[in-house]
Amino acid sequence: MLGRTYVDENCSVARALEMVGERWSLLIIRDALLRGFCRFSEFQRSLAIAPNILASRLEGFVEAGLMEVRTHPDRVGQHTYVLTEKGRQLAPVILALTAWGDRWAAPDGPPVAYQHQRCSGAIDLQVRCSICGDLSATGDLTARPRRTEPA
Amino acid sequence: MLGRTYVDENCSVARALEMVGERWSLLIIRDALLRGFCRFSEFQRSLAIAPNILASRLEGFVEAGLMEVRTHPDRVGQHTYVLTEKGRQLAPVILALTAWGDRWAAPDGPPVAYQHQRCSGAIDLQVRCSICGDLSATGDLTARPRRTEPA
Repeated sequence: MLGRTYVDENCSVARALEMVGERWSLLIIRDALLRGFCRFSEFQRSLAIAPNILASRLEGFVEAGLMEVRTHPDRVGQHTYVLTEKGRQLAPVILALTAWGDRWAAPDGPPVAYQHQRCSGAIDLQVRCSICGDLSATGDLTARPRRTEPA
Repeated sequence: MLGRTYVDENCSVARALEMVGERWSLLIIRDALLRGFCRFSEFQRSLAIAPNILASRLEGFVEAGLMEVRTHPDRVGQHTYVLTEKGRQLAPVILALTAWGDRWAAPDGPPVAYQHQRCSGAIDLQVRCSICGDLSATGDLTARPRRTEPA
């Protein structure tokens, strides 16, 4: 989606951004994930982006395996864009961006709360150290190259 | 950084992406956060991006309060770009992108492991429901508008 420019980076952040780093991408994923949108017209109304850009993003998601095209259950001939498991697993990225935006870019307070659909519980994103359990570990991180072995 | 196009969205994801959604932004933050880079030349060598783009991103980060310019402790006249607390708190976004990329875009296995510097513990990112504790809650999320009150 971002071309091949990030691909030389042997880094999961760079590779993830190749698929979802393009402008509008994560907002489309957000709408699919949290608003249950699946129709072209729903995304377009929500985001007010040019149809050709939206079409290009949705096609890119299908190519990358983040969404799949399904026929609309009720409307013959209409199709929908539905997140795959690979797409749904971007939820923590959306949640992390939300938490940060709530804290640093929401002068009128957080506009939206995310809930667990089943029990209405608030969704909690926690970063902790697996050894000492420190929850403030993000201020004190380091990256260690891993021996790469086939997944 | 992305212009004003996202600003009509009363959404913390959109507002966060305004500041860090531009191409290269999150990779620069990654390098500052996890590799400890703070000099222009370090970022440039690491990312191999055009100097004018890197300069524009760094200036944008300073304007947005994600980084601050400090004079280099050892080299007179040279300055460094240091993450502020606001910038450092993007760590969960980087960690969430890493976890997703490790799972879905790392054919040779995850290239890097993130550790807690103090005790070398692995860093764990967990999404859970605050009521039922379900760790798979991301597949079952919903967004509820919050009454906006001043922060």
